[in-house]
Amino acid sequence: MTTVVNDRRRGFYLDSVALMRLSRTVAGMAGVVECGMMMGTPANKRIMADAGVLDAVGEAAGPGDLVIAIAGHDAAAADAALAAACALLDAPKSATGDTRAFAPRTLRAALAADPAANLALISVPGAFAAAEARKALNRGLNVLMFSDNVPLAEEVALKQLARVKGLLMMGPDCGTAIIGGTPLGFANVVPRGDIGIVGASGTGIQEVSCLIANNGGGISHAIGVGGRDLKAEVGGITMLMAIDLLDADPATKTIVIISKPPAESVAKAVLDRVAKSKKRFAICFLGGTSMQVPKNAKLAPTLEAAADLALGRDRMGDALPDVLLMPGKLIRGLYAGGTLAAEAQVVLVAAGLGCASNAPIPGAAKLTAGAVGHALIDLGDDDYTQGRPHPMIDPSVRDEPLRAALADTAVGVVLIDVVLGRGAHADPASFVAAVLGASAKSRPLIVATVTGTSDDPQDRTGQRAILENAGVVLAQSNAEAARLALRIVSDTVIQSIG
Amino acid sequence: MTTVVNDRRRGFYLDSVALMRLSRTVAGMAGVVECGMMMGTPANKRIMADAGVLDAVGEAAGPGDLVIAIAGHDAAAADAALAAACALLDAPKSATGDTRAFAPRTLRAALAADPAANLALISVPGAFAAAEARKALNRGLNVLMFSDNVPLAEEVALKQLARVKGLLMMGPDCGTAIIGGTPLGFANVVPRGDIGIVGASGTGIQEVSCLIANNGGGISHAIGVGGRDLKAEVGGITMLMAIDLLDADPATKTIVIISKPPAESVAKAVLDRVAKSKKRFAICFLGGTSMQVPKNAKLAPTLEAAADLALGRDRMGDALPDVLLMPGKLIRGLYAGGTLAAEAQVVLVAAGLGCASNAPIPGAAKLTAGAVGHALIDLGDDDYTQGRPHPMIDPSVRDEPLRAALADTAVGVVLIDVVLGRGAHADPASFVAAVLGASAKSRPLIVATVTGTSDDPQDRTGQRAILENAGVVLAQSNAEAARLALRIVSDTVIQSIG
Repeated sequence: MTTVVNDRRRGFYLDSVALMRLSRTVAGMAGVVECGMMMGTPANKRIMADAGVLDAVGEAAGPGDLVIAIAGHDAAAADAALAAACALLDAPKSATGDTRAFAPRTLRAALAADPAANLALISVPGAFAAAEARKALNRGLNVLMFSDNVPLAEEVALKQLARVKGLLMMGPDCGTAIIGGTPLGFANVVPRGDIGIVGASGTGIQEVSCLIANNGGGISHAIGVGGRDLKAEVGGITMLMAIDLLDADPATKTIVIISKPPAESVAKAVLDRVAKSKKRFAICFLGGTSMQVPKNAKLAPTLEAAADLALGRDRMGDALPDVLLMPGKLIRGLYAGGTLAAEAQVVLVAAGLGCASNAPIPGAAKLTAGAVGHALIDLGDDDYTQGRPHPMIDPSVRDEPLRAALADTAVGVVLIDVVLGRGAHADPASFVAAVLGASAKSRPLIVATVTGTSDDPQDRTGQRAILENAGVVLAQSNAEAARLALRIVSDTVIQSIG
Repeated sequence: MTTVVNDRRRGFYLDSVALMRLSRTVAGMAGVVECGMMMGTPANKRIMADAGVLDAVGEAAGPGDLVIAIAGHDAAAADAALAAACALLDAPKSATGDTRAFAPRTLRAALAADPAANLALISVPGAFAAAEARKALNRGLNVLMFSDNVPLAEEVALKQLARVKGLLMMGPDCGTAIIGGTPLGFANVVPRGDIGIVGASGTGIQEVSCLIANNGGGISHAIGVGGRDLKAEVGGITMLMAIDLLDADPATKTIVIISKPPAESVAKAVLDRVAKSKKRFAICFLGGTSMQVPKNAKLAPTLEAAADLALGRDRMGDALPDVLLMPGKLIRGLYAGGTLAAEAQVVLVAAGLGCASNAPIPGAAKLTAGAVGHALIDLGDDDYTQGRPHPMIDPSVRDEPLRAALADTAVGVVLIDVVLGRGAHADPASFVAAVLGASAKSRPLIVATVTGTSDDPQDRTGQRAILENAGVVLAQSNAEAARLALRIVSDTVIQSIG
């Protein structure tokens, strides 16, 4: 018989991440069925009631109270878990592994401990957040407010106060920022560099900053503004101030702006501000229809395109798929390994797909010049290697067939094997990457497998990274690669059956 | 004006890999247009003539002579390159980096240097290979013959001789073997273990041994037999001897057989031999039609299935795509990052695809219960997180929606974001892997991006590996993932336009 016990701590709050960690620890104890540790808001109490862990003690809690709600297999287990939960709350340093976060319980105490602090990160429940932010602003601190569920009118008032004081009010609902190299909220560890980001979206900032980092660039500052900053009511106060800051920052050369489509008046204000800058801008108003932007700015339809623009690469033609240029639906396999070509044929033939090869298996056709259809080619065959080394030794054997496949508008997927191991070329992936690098932007999808192990002399991880950076999709086995190709042309399959 | 000079060395051979390395070095010298270093067979001389590097000296060479053919920008450059090529040939140790391969010039000298040797690896041109192999067999050596272009009658004679002497004749055209942990020919560095492989295909052995190694298994021995061993004329002499050896080897528990479909008589002989063994067999006759196999054996339709069987995993139902079970063509995005969900919508909407979301961008529809269509869901939205931590903190928020998508036969592709960085969960990928591990074998394709950098606390490489091992296809950016999904459903797109 499950026993439920609750405890309640008045006026005690911890952020939801810390609470979740603690409740997980308790839920993992022997004899515990379920553990909830949440602030006593009506919504949270409903959730705990639905989960069957709320009793009268928790039910009586107010939104400023912490509820500790436990269901145990029996009363002894529930009581033990409750005692453990309380002990964890009273010794939060060891429970969370973070020795600093819980030390000061108030803004005043935090400032006393570190008078040089110039930014407050506020992550208390929304109902308390505005009051804390106002305290912080009045003490001359910039604010990053992670909390959401703050009324819009409060946000407007806080941002107006911040503007008057010349302070940055990031958020409410600002999930991500990187200020002077310090990650705040959810943020990735990225190198410092000359690209500044202002974003109304946490994961938008994360994706763009990671794509920049993974492609050799770095971030000066990434400033979050909160999801509602570009609404007409707020007027983009923080976005405009952030642009001012980055524009004045000598370390920032390029600025990326990320937001959902702003209110028209706000878009105009932002674009007017951009026009006054001498820096380059990439503007990603995700889902926004096209608009006129100043000469120093380009519109990026996707986060990926924004990162590319910031890196000085204009791959815009490639950012959005052009239906009219949608490539063909034929599979072209260009194999160094003859048996891998045979295995791919097995997969296609089993699916009822006609295919041809210079080394056909039963059920496949002999490849003839000029034939149109799926083709899986063994490049190690004498036709291709007469007097030349095998493509596993000399990967350039594949260069010309690969160029031809990329230029063939009937081809939708190119299957490739990169075979590592002793005896094989030291760097076959770079041959593929070189051909792809020189190819047109709209080209067939390349699906590859790397046959090799982590102990092979070629560095399997490095070979895979070269292929990935060239835009190749990697499969874990050649059979999986062939199945993926099949999925991509699978309507054709169904048509051929139906 | 290009100048061509040739030199010819009588009765001198080097294997084609060594020659290619040397000729590459020479071709890279200043003033050199082209360099060919090949044995003077008619085919090779034709290639060099076509390349414009052959002169009368090279033309006069016989098949046992090495031709050094150089085209230079002028006579001085060509002469200097020829001198350099000759110097490299005379000091092969430094040129190839291999201090042992060229030391003995004859089998006799090699055996004198190492009287304990019990295997000869023969990689001379086909015209010379049989004579060398016969010498080796007569000296009591097992043979791995890498050379191809050996007449079939010679192969039969050599293998019959080997059988009489109780020696293993691997090849001709045997590219890969791993004997007692020693890789021969093209072979990957794999751990030792209890799986033995006999294969008529080099890359087949490589793919299977790598899949075994990459999934935690190991290899006792991998024995290559050459591509023609299972022809009726040869009768599978080496395959049958190799099975005898592995069957008698106490370190080998499971045996994988890899070949193109053998001649009927040979298949019968092999299967009869398998039936006499007490060990487990996985038999991959690639492209072979179904046949009756002994109880201790299973037929593997693909190399991947052979590796799976050897590892004790029966994923046979998954090995070949079942057209009737081909999944649907709908895209379902399950996003922790709201902006990533928005970016995916941008890609779909731009391609003319209707899609819905709980957080729709302009052009997308509001998601409604029971609606059928492409859906890109922001799991961080309050609908999903009311009272729960954000899915970036608690990835289990995605578990149930992911299970539902996997079970939905209308869904063809599931898009997923795994967001790393400070603040995010320590191991989000394992949540995805756990749900996939418990899913049915025939399921939608999962396409994921990992938003993160190599410096993030979560170990981006490890997170990616967890997803890949769960069968997830990884894209380099979320936009690329969305474009991949689009390709997979792209016939639908074309239909919606056309």
